[in-house]
Amino acid sequence: MATDIKAALGRQRIETPSWAFGNSGTRFKVFAQRGVPRDPYEKLADAAQVHRHTGVAPTVALHIPWDKVDDYAALARHACDLGIAIGAINSNVFQDDDYMLGSVTNPDPAVRRKALDHLLECVDIMDLTGSDTLKLWFSDGTNYPGQDDLRSRQDRLAEALAAVYDRLGEGQRFLLEYKLFEPAFYATDVPDWGTAYAHCLKLGPKAQVVVDTGHHAPGTNIEFIVAFLLREGMLGGFDFNSRFYADDDLMVGAADPFQLFRIMYEVIRGGGYNERTAFMLDQCHNIEPKIPGQIRSVMNVQEATAKALLVDGDALARAQSEGDVLGANAVFMDAFNTDVRPLLAELREEAGLDPDPMSAYRRSGYAEKIVAERVGGPQAGWGA
Amino acid sequence: MATDIKAALGRQRIETPSWAFGNSGTRFKVFAQRGVPRDPYEKLADAAQVHRHTGVAPTVALHIPWDKVDDYAALARHACDLGIAIGAINSNVFQDDDYMLGSVTNPDPAVRRKALDHLLECVDIMDLTGSDTLKLWFSDGTNYPGQDDLRSRQDRLAEALAAVYDRLGEGQRFLLEYKLFEPAFYATDVPDWGTAYAHCLKLGPKAQVVVDTGHHAPGTNIEFIVAFLLREGMLGGFDFNSRFYADDDLMVGAADPFQLFRIMYEVIRGGGYNERTAFMLDQCHNIEPKIPGQIRSVMNVQEATAKALLVDGDALARAQSEGDVLGANAVFMDAFNTDVRPLLAELREEAGLDPDPMSAYRRSGYAEKIVAERVGGPQAGWGA
Amino acid sequence: MATDIKAALGRQRIETPSWAFGNSGTRFKVFAQRGVPRDPYEKLADAAQVHRHTGVAPTVALHIPWDKVDDYAALARHACDLGIAIGAINSNVFQDDDYMLGSVTNPDPAVRRKALDHLLECVDIMDLTGSDTLKLWFSDGTNYPGQDDLRSRQDRLAEALAAVYDRLGEGQRFLLEYKLFEPAFYATDVPDWGTAYAHCLKLGPKAQVVVDTGHHAPGTNIEFIVAFLLREGMLGGFDFNSRFYADDDLMVGAADPFQLFRIMYEVIRGGGYNERTAFMLDQCHNIEPKIPGQIRSVMNVQEATAKALLVDGDALARAQSEGDVLGANAVFMDAFNTDVRPLLAELREEAGLDPDPMSAYRRSGYAEKIVAERVGGPQAGWGA
Amino acid sequence: MATDIKAALGRQRIETPSWAFGNSGTRFKVFAQRGVPRDPYEKLADAAQVHRHTGVAPTVALHIPWDKVDDYAALARHACDLGIAIGAINSNVFQDDDYMLGSVTNPDPAVRRKALDHLLECVDIMDLTGSDTLKLWFSDGTNYPGQDDLRSRQDRLAEALAAVYDRLGEGQRFLLEYKLFEPAFYATDVPDWGTAYAHCLKLGPKAQVVVDTGHHAPGTNIEFIVAFLLREGMLGGFDFNSRFYADDDLMVGAADPFQLFRIMYEVIRGGGYNERTAFMLDQCHNIEPKIPGQIRSVMNVQEATAKALLVDGDALARAQSEGDVLGANAVFMDAFNTDVRPLLAELREEAGLDPDPMSAYRRSGYAEKIVAERVGGPQAGWGA
Repeated sequence: MATDIKAALGRQRIETPSWAFGNSGTRFKVFAQRGVPRDPYEKLADAAQVHRHTGVAPTVALHIPWDKVDDYAALARHACDLGIAIGAINSNVFQDDDYMLGSVTNPDPAVRRKALDHLLECVDIMDLTGSDTLKLWFSDGTNYPGQDDLRSRQDRLAEALAAVYDRLGEGQRFLLEYKLFEPAFYATDVPDWGTAYAHCLKLGPKAQVVVDTGHHAPGTNIEFIVAFLLREGMLGGFDFNSRFYADDDLMVGAADPFQLFRIMYEVIRGGGYNERTAFMLDQCHNIEPKIPGQIRSVMNVQEATAKALLVDGDALARAQSEGDVLGANAVFMDAFNTDVRPLLAELREEAGLDPDPMSAYRRSGYAEKIVAERVGGPQAGWGA
Repeated sequence: MATDIKAALGRQRIETPSWAFGNSGTRFKVFAQRGVPRDPYEKLADAAQVHRHTGVAPTVALHIPWDKVDDYAALARHACDLGIAIGAINSNVFQDDDYMLGSVTNPDPAVRRKALDHLLECVDIMDLTGSDTLKLWFSDGTNYPGQDDLRSRQDRLAEALAAVYDRLGEGQRFLLEYKLFEPAFYATDVPDWGTAYAHCLKLGPKAQVVVDTGHHAPGTNIEFIVAFLLREGMLGGFDFNSRFYADDDLMVGAADPFQLFRIMYEVIRGGGYNERTAFMLDQCHNIEPKIPGQIRSVMNVQEATAKALLVDGDALARAQSEGDVLGANAVFMDAFNTDVRPLLAELREEAGLDPDPMSAYRRSGYAEKIVAERVGGPQAGWGA
Repeated sequence: MATDIKAALGRQRIETPSWAFGNSGTRFKVFAQRGVPRDPYEKLADAAQVHRHTGVAPTVALHIPWDKVDDYAALARHACDLGIAIGAINSNVFQDDDYMLGSVTNPDPAVRRKALDHLLECVDIMDLTGSDTLKLWFSDGTNYPGQDDLRSRQDRLAEALAAVYDRLGEGQRFLLEYKLFEPAFYATDVPDWGTAYAHCLKLGPKAQVVVDTGHHAPGTNIEFIVAFLLREGMLGGFDFNSRFYADDDLMVGAADPFQLFRIMYEVIRGGGYNERTAFMLDQCHNIEPKIPGQIRSVMNVQEATAKALLVDGDALARAQSEGDVLGANAVFMDAFNTDVRPLLAELREEAGLDPDPMSAYRRSGYAEKIVAERVGGPQAGWGA
Repeated sequence: MATDIKAALGRQRIETPSWAFGNSGTRFKVFAQRGVPRDPYEKLADAAQVHRHTGVAPTVALHIPWDKVDDYAALARHACDLGIAIGAINSNVFQDDDYMLGSVTNPDPAVRRKALDHLLECVDIMDLTGSDTLKLWFSDGTNYPGQDDLRSRQDRLAEALAAVYDRLGEGQRFLLEYKLFEPAFYATDVPDWGTAYAHCLKLGPKAQVVVDTGHHAPGTNIEFIVAFLLREGMLGGFDFNSRFYADDDLMVGAADPFQLFRIMYEVIRGGGYNERTAFMLDQCHNIEPKIPGQIRSVMNVQEATAKALLVDGDALARAQSEGDVLGANAVFMDAFNTDVRPLLAELREEAGLDPDPMSAYRRSGYAEKIVAERVGGPQAGWGA
């Protein structure tokens, strides 16, 4: 049993986002940190550190244009040299001045065309980097009732999605992200999983839904959505982070570790614990150091996964079928209440890693090194 | 213009629920009211009063078994004699002791069979009463993580829905209701529109989604869902009520009249303002008198509809296409800010009704009459 | 260290509520369970079982009139014979027909007088039973804007609270409960801790605030409130339960064990881990068996407390003062991630108890015994 | 009656915020607009336009350091020349790099000292500008459980508030703002009205609470808080804006005009409709033009006020005292459903203003003028 669990944990793959290594903040302030990368190459170097100490973060997601370079093939080779690889390509159609009233759902056809061209360019970059996944997040929406026509915006969205879908090559897919609100404050054009699901369903198997754990209304049962999408074959992956209020983008598992465990349980239960599901991190380290923040998130996902793997499926099924409410809940909670940190430490040692990634990173001197070396030039951030 | 609007308002049809005329309350207390009906016949009589004074509430929904009678054809004739007709049939698979852990999603196949038989019986009653709509609300869900298997419950739900679908006759349909929570407090088996939509989509055109305006997570944009479902041809109707917090089941439009207006606007915009959409009320008059409570709800829907019809579509489209945020919002708000009560009073007078339904009901003496006559015998309520 | 923690855990006192042993449910259905008590004496017997197996639940709260008896002194002696004692007295001014529009805040002075008389009678019962704590929950509020005057209702509330306060004897106090909504759906007269605090502050040291963990708006940081009230000397105690959505009244710690841990941490940090703080349970076992449901809740509180006691205060203070965000969080999480069940099992064995209370209860045969014996007569519930 | 109402409306005073005329946005993007002010003088000029067309916005709030100038007396004279005056002074202790972990509640005493010095400097500016109100908003809080000590932060907060309080001169006061979350995502140091109230209460009459209508948890009844604070003499004023989700900072009344009406009703009912209550706007015009956005907000407040003044107090009190739920609600809704725009147009004309401020502004040519003139130099925004 423990052997199976360790084997399963050994196969885990978690993707870090390049933008987590740059500066981020709220609308009130971005607090700059020292040693932050100044270009995509330095971001990859930082991502490689996360992988070096955890052993389960071998890919890094890019964000275009924040990670725009002249030679994407060279960037991919650079990743390879660092022992990692390029993961998903994230499009950005929310920061150009033209997108104030929307990108692919903008009432102005010229703006829509521009946005679509960017999306297609992202597929070009997939071709160049070998990435197989395009992540689509649309901040599109309206702030005021009446501002634009809700239905027409769906028509425009459908048209753009179809165009991107048609451009996808063999072995490529896109993941459509939904979000309740922010930056749109009245109506968001893809506000919930149902909307994303309905659009993807019409297009075909290369379109799937991605669940960002911070993008739901208060009280939403996220693991239900995970279970439902997996049953439909429509779960493409996750943007993991955590939140107490809105899209807080805190470290994964920091706000509600029990929820993270329940989500990972449904992933496993639903047959989604494999390479077809993209387990991506997406968070903002507003006040904590970036690299150890990512390491902590990776470890929290590992711990939740280990606990989920520990659930005694036979005992659970038996109690469930007997209608034993307390018994079934007890089986479930037994796994959650187990301290899996020793198991994970063991796993790391067997893989030749330090059993304590946080401490190993601290001792590595990397933090001091980048502070000393990365002096001058604009730091990477959401706008750069 | 005003003529068109009045014509449209004259065609409006709003369905009252039989259970709104009986006693209702919270888990803390049901406050009994005097004059409340003691059987389905008396409920129909009360529903007829709502129609008599408003002119737009010609049908009444039944709830089985609360409205169980020996002779449904006779009940239908009784309705006809009162100038109204039987509307949707509402199933109830949440009150039998066997349903503690679910009805059609119960882990026990015998309970599932029992629940399904009830649903099929409801279709029999549709045949007998001439009703064309079956409303399905499942309280099914779990209270504790691990209590039952989320995915298996979806399998069971799909199986039951398919069986009901197959039983539907020509011209019959079912509407599947979703609800975030209550009475299930961890996971509800049909918690959101996406779940209802996905199930209906697989079955065919006789299965549609019904939107209860009190069944969403805080912050959910309901009119977006309305617009989306209409675009998909999947909006079957509404259970109207209003809420400040959860499923409060207050009088329609009492908590947020602007939201009701936005919903009615999307109904009209999306081509849903016709007999294919069921505009049903579903509320609990815990503390206010039942019949005038229904009259007020009907009037509030009328007022919201009138305002929505008043939106200057050409001016709105122009401002929207120009990206004129303030201008478009202003066109929209102009309609909402208009006092449409004089228009509706006029409409009523032209239809031979009293311009003030609330006052006409008060003067009718009906309230005093039922208090005097309905003495003895158990009052109708949710459990009877 | 472990010795101190065990000593602290050994001193813990958790109060069970008599009503948790009777039937309860939602507005949709109360599912009756077999073996449920039929009178206060049988409720005390069940509460004694919880104490017998956990060793930390020596008192039971009464609810008047649900626990009305002719001879309260005899009831108190009965408790004593069972090895437990009467805890807080809970008033009930929400179920009489007169309270439809409020009790102490009702616009009708006669109803207010009646409600106040009930509250004063509860103090009489305190005198008779030796209880030192009166718990006041007012369901008072309004369902519709305009229904009553918000400010006048505060005046009436203040008047009633002052009258009760004046009646309190030496060593007696009342705890004022707040709740966001339900059964009032527009405005609740004591909706939040601020309102309860302001009223208590004016009265004096015998009036304190009680925190029901299910009574807040979504997103509310409950441990902040706990810390704040303790700093003000105004935290009287807890009604523990858990929730995913509203006032779900699930078993304590079932929905968010991390939150329960954070709350217990602030209790300890703020000097509230002693007999002046009442740690009461308040939940509805709608679908799970009552006695083991209570045992589970008691154990969950114990586990959260053990983890909170394990927090390394020195290390935490150091990291906090250095602004080490990740370090401080890690110290905090180390305690939460520890499996404290072995420690608690040890503690129980040292106290002569079975290390596994759930299993011990199951093996005791008590459940079968009460099912066999408690036949005939109306079961206890919220209305009886 | 109408005369009294018009007189009351004629006395209304609404304060615009200088920062609303600069650029603002979300963490994703600030969309710059043409013609935006480049310094405080230009902001005042824009604020004067709002007053010119509405007649009820004679003061403008400053924000330090965004509105830092060398000669505040000169700035005040400039305002006077424009026909307006300086209103509240808003402090800013959230944008300096030192404030990453808090300002007055920071664990580092040097940072706390720096923050306090800024607050005291703001009082100096009050002396120089003649402003009588200091608005204190603290973004202080923590993102992770354990990050800092909740209680110690309250001690530090209390200390800072006392120091500012002691510095206030005759006729000066401060208003303490509360906010549920953002930019702090775990615990905010002043998260709710209760916290602000408790701190102010200890200090004395120069400390009052300010209600920002976007700073509450979902479902919070804001008008209850308004009524409660007025009853306690602790309502200092408002930051008006509107929201569908979080602190969206949309135009006042745009999201829920009925709520705005209910708030204004409680202001009037509670004796707060006078110069002791500061009616300030605080919003972000992310996508709409700034000046007409402010005009719209001012007009929306006026309309809500007019409706609130129209409530028939005698009829309402009668229905309330009789427990006539529907009757009382109807009296309340009659006022809300009235179209007050003609009344306000009349009022404006009598005051020598254009009856339609939006159209008058459009025709004034001011928008074109500032676009033409304000070329070159950094635009004002939240960071400048």
